[in-house]
Amino acid sequence: MHLAEYLFRRIYELGIRSIFGIPGDYNLKSLDYITPCGLNWVGNVNELNGGYAADGYARIKGIGAIMTTLGVGELSAINALAGACAELVPVIHIVGYPSTIVQKKRLPMHHTLADGDFRRFARMSAEISSAVVVLEDKLDATRLIDETIIECCRSSKPVYIGFPVDLVEVEVDPSPLEYPLSLEGPNPNPTADEDYGVDLILGRIRAARNPIIIVESLAGRPHSLDTTRLFVECSGLPCFTTPMAKGIIDETLINFRGLYVGKVSEPTVFEQVLSSDLILLLGPRSTDFSTAGFKTDLPHIETIKFEPHRIQMQYQGILGLGMKAVLERLSNVLEKEQSGSVSTASAVSTVSAASTPPRKLGGTPDIHGTISPSSTSPKESVNGDELINFEGNILDKSQPLTQEWIWPRISSWLEEDDIISADIGTAAYGTIWTRYPRGAIPLTQFVWSSIGYAVGAAVGAALAAREDEKQSPGARCRRIICLTGDGSFQLTAQEVSTMVRRKLGIIIFIICNDGYTVERIIHGMDAEYNDIQPWDFKLLPAVFQATPDTARTYAVRTRAELNMLLDDPSFGPAEHYNEKNPPPLSIVELHMDKYDVPESLQRTIDSIQDKN
Amino acid sequence: MHLAEYLFRRIYELGIRSIFGIPGDYNLKSLDYITPCGLNWVGNVNELNGGYAADGYARIKGIGAIMTTLGVGELSAINALAGACAELVPVIHIVGYPSTIVQKKRLPMHHTLADGDFRRFARMSAEISSAVVVLEDKLDATRLIDETIIECCRSSKPVYIGFPVDLVEVEVDPSPLEYPLSLEGPNPNPTADEDYGVDLILGRIRAARNPIIIVESLAGRPHSLDTTRLFVECSGLPCFTTPMAKGIIDETLINFRGLYVGKVSEPTVFEQVLSSDLILLLGPRSTDFSTAGFKTDLPHIETIKFEPHRIQMQYQGILGLGMKAVLERLSNVLEKEQSGSVSTASAVSTVSAASTPPRKLGGTPDIHGTISPSSTSPKESVNGDELINFEGNILDKSQPLTQEWIWPRISSWLEEDDIISADIGTAAYGTIWTRYPRGAIPLTQFVWSSIGYAVGAAVGAALAAREDEKQSPGARCRRIICLTGDGSFQLTAQEVSTMVRRKLGIIIFIICNDGYTVERIIHGMDAEYNDIQPWDFKLLPAVFQATPDTARTYAVRTRAELNMLLDDPSFGPAEHYNEKNPPPLSIVELHMDKYDVPESLQRTIDSIQDKN
Repeated sequence: MHLAEYLFRRIYELGIRSIFGIPGDYNLKSLDYITPCGLNWVGNVNELNGGYAADGYARIKGIGAIMTTLGVGELSAINALAGACAELVPVIHIVGYPSTIVQKKRLPMHHTLADGDFRRFARMSAEISSAVVVLEDKLDATRLIDETIIECCRSSKPVYIGFPVDLVEVEVDPSPLEYPLSLEGPNPNPTADEDYGVDLILGRIRAARNPIIIVESLAGRPHSLDTTRLFVECSGLPCFTTPMAKGIIDETLINFRGLYVGKVSEPTVFEQVLSSDLILLLGPRSTDFSTAGFKTDLPHIETIKFEPHRIQMQYQGILGLGMKAVLERLSNVLEKEQSGSVSTASAVSTVSAASTPPRKLGGTPDIHGTISPSSTSPKESVNGDELINFEGNILDKSQPLTQEWIWPRISSWLEEDDIISADIGTAAYGTIWTRYPRGAIPLTQFVWSSIGYAVGAAVGAALAAREDEKQSPGARCRRIICLTGDGSFQLTAQEVSTMVRRKLGIIIFIICNDGYTVERIIHGMDAEYNDIQPWDFKLLPAVFQATPDTARTYAVRTRAELNMLLDDPSFGPAEHYNEKNPPPLSIVELHMDKYDVPESLQRTIDSIQDKN
Repeated sequence: MHLAEYLFRRIYELGIRSIFGIPGDYNLKSLDYITPCGLNWVGNVNELNGGYAADGYARIKGIGAIMTTLGVGELSAINALAGACAELVPVIHIVGYPSTIVQKKRLPMHHTLADGDFRRFARMSAEISSAVVVLEDKLDATRLIDETIIECCRSSKPVYIGFPVDLVEVEVDPSPLEYPLSLEGPNPNPTADEDYGVDLILGRIRAARNPIIIVESLAGRPHSLDTTRLFVECSGLPCFTTPMAKGIIDETLINFRGLYVGKVSEPTVFEQVLSSDLILLLGPRSTDFSTAGFKTDLPHIETIKFEPHRIQMQYQGILGLGMKAVLERLSNVLEKEQSGSVSTASAVSTVSAASTPPRKLGGTPDIHGTISPSSTSPKESVNGDELINFEGNILDKSQPLTQEWIWPRISSWLEEDDIISADIGTAAYGTIWTRYPRGAIPLTQFVWSSIGYAVGAAVGAALAAREDEKQSPGARCRRIICLTGDGSFQLTAQEVSTMVRRKLGIIIFIICNDGYTVERIIHGMDAEYNDIQPWDFKLLPAVFQATPDTARTYAVRTRAELNMLLDDPSFGPAEHYNEKNPPPLSIVELHMDKYDVPESLQRTIDSIQDKN
């Protein structure tokens, strides 16, 4: 078996079906192996977009891959891979290298600094990867590939495999492929320490008058995600998430209580957290944007921090136990207590079964303790600040779009399992405060915060969703909704070309507000540097040669117009993917005032400012 | 004086007037100082494009600058800066950092990996920069800024200045600004060694029957450029350039003989080089693309290599002398001999004075020893393979465009001082084989070879040209011609938005041949991975909200159509820049066969293939 085939068979084994990237002189030969190995070459428009797409894909499928060429290609993608590292997304980055002979001779090849140093770019990637290897010899190549892929999965971070062209066709022993890679690592056996720890924690929970759970982002990593969800459901304890952790917990659960961001939280949420006497903090990981400037800690409330490999108890000290194992055991005990006292976990797990059809579960704009799911029927109120009366008449056709109004409105239109790719700025901040339907997944970068991410990530997520549908007959294809701003969109706009090329019916909402509004709030409200060249976005599908039936564009300026669009059943319905009649790409311009920001974003920025 | 003002005043002192980049949270405050310091904030669409623009600007003005924000911004630009490093272009990269207090506390800020390490990205940039500094204290900040800028100029490579937000407004001593930076370094006094070396080299030149000069790229670095040109003119020796060195030597000089690329050269060029008995190799620097795979050396011909800081004589050994000083002295001696024997250097320096008006000096397609400058009048033949007869009738309206035909044709339309930004691939390879008018400057990346470069670089060059015109009243504004392919263009297409926004009348020719044709030649002639989504480029100006009078588009499919366009005096005339009535942006689609490549490129690739 050729080494390239070995590599791509391993990648296939991981569940990956699409490889992102663009061709380059040093990776062309490898690309020949992609299709024969059952994989699909996506062909992005540039490498940065390809990197974002691999990240978006990995967030849905569990892992992603991108292929670039030495120097020019890999460095164009490196910001996206650094983002994957910051956000803990496992992406395999395969980089085509010149032949090992050329490297040994230190020849001044193109795509290098012409200084004979062929490890320079690998060293750069090492700063943002959990493993970096440049293959040099066929003798250890398959072992190094396996180890690097395992490291990618276990660390949930990018890894880098440099692949010289003269190793593509070398013959290697295929027998390791008979054994699937061991991705999870050995599970330690339960110990006496674990019994002690579980008892200690249970004791604190039982002693507490009002214990709560706050879910942070590490609780959502692939290996702990199911355990986290199980614990939240089985315990029945009031549960809050931080912005970075959005998407981990089903927000239609009866014990889900909303988003906790310290004083920036909704007042009722903040009160509930303040009135607790025990916080179970799952998977803590902070960043300024997610904590309103590191102001969410409540040291006067007893807190137990469940970290992946240790548990910090505020008064009892540190337990050297794994979060996953302890949460599983706590879930078992608490579920039995729950089922004896209140109801079964499955019965309380969501409110959707009883009150609304499962396919159309819109959340309400408010995310306080009370649950009142709304349908998106035009005859019902979607907001206290209402435009449409119960007979469906437009009260004020010209009432402008505002940040406070659009996010709950768009959220009420969301459906189960939607994927929402949102650029940091008003889009990401606007959506996190709305309740998501069950199974909805946000793609956002609260740590890395690289604008332009949302368009690329949407491409990857859309391909992942289509593959998942193919593998689960009868399943509906998830909808991909991309929320971005006019400034952010411009950075990666050409990736809409890939949406057209690959028939991805993504729904893109672009906040058209004349520039980098989130930057205006930080500094330079009226500075020219926060302005942008206005674009006529609706012409883009024609540039990319989409036909009118494969792409639709909308310019929305009033609330009535947005209501009409979202209430139109032909707009963005979730359907089975149909190769011959794919859903259309939709681009919706949302025209808004350039100084308007969601109040939550304004408060977050105000709270962070003293950090700079 | 605030530290930010100090920094920008130094940048102004270097001749820089435009700063590229996009705003980010950690650089906003610094941006406030740009306009008051007499500088112009360009505001690119994304950082990669901004980096290319800074490179293009630096190639015209001698140095450039880009400003980004920590992590996301700087890493998006890093491929462009690596390109500047590979191509020896001095660019100052200023990166906005969080406050020094936040850094000291190692807070998990956004735009980092949230691990408290704020030097990670500086370490990455150190791999592709000649100096990296992150300012930490106001006490040494101005000294570090000065040293870093000096290093940028002396090394002709990028440097990196990390600028924390809390240092923007700190008060510093402005008195160092009274002394301009010493950019060139101390000039060593002439030594006895130099006398000896000059005599030794003169002896070899005089002993040779047929000495020639081959100019390579290091001879064109800012500090040696004038000396190189002087030596070529004063010596009167037959002179050849390599692809990377194109633009250094006036190709209308009577002693300029063409492009040397070993066996890939025009046969007459190769014969002339082979028949010489002494090669004076100025500023040698090789890369595979520029040497047809390292096959240009002629060890059987005596060669003297003039490197920046030493001179290697094939039989006499290495002289520890600077190229610049030795070439200056050789020029003095040889000029006197020339003027005594043949004619004055100034009289033979160009053919333009005698034969054609200086404003319209088109080179001929052939670049052999004979000089026959052609005008671009439609009544004259521009090529042996001609379409238009001497009465101007179209002989064959439907003859398709071919690579062999278009490049000489476009070249014959070039004017003095044009700047030609060409992406690697058929565009760069096509143009290097044509003779350029006097003063024409190519912007290409023969080492780094990053496709998409040409569009960004054109933006920077256009701003540089406009500034130069402003500073030299009466001078014509240089024309900027961008030559790219449909695949390459897509990577950075959105930067056309900046052309519209800043009223840059760039003339873009896009080879529309359905994908990455240079990659097809290397591998995968019909592979789907070398295909792209076709775009309708002519719609782009409308996307970027250009009005019909500020942008024009053309779709050209036949030779007759291209002739008609290039012969139209209203197409792309070089004019004084007029703020109120700027020249239009022009986008010309050149539709060509997807398998057609310039023969020279095919031969280069064939020659390189064994390296991989």
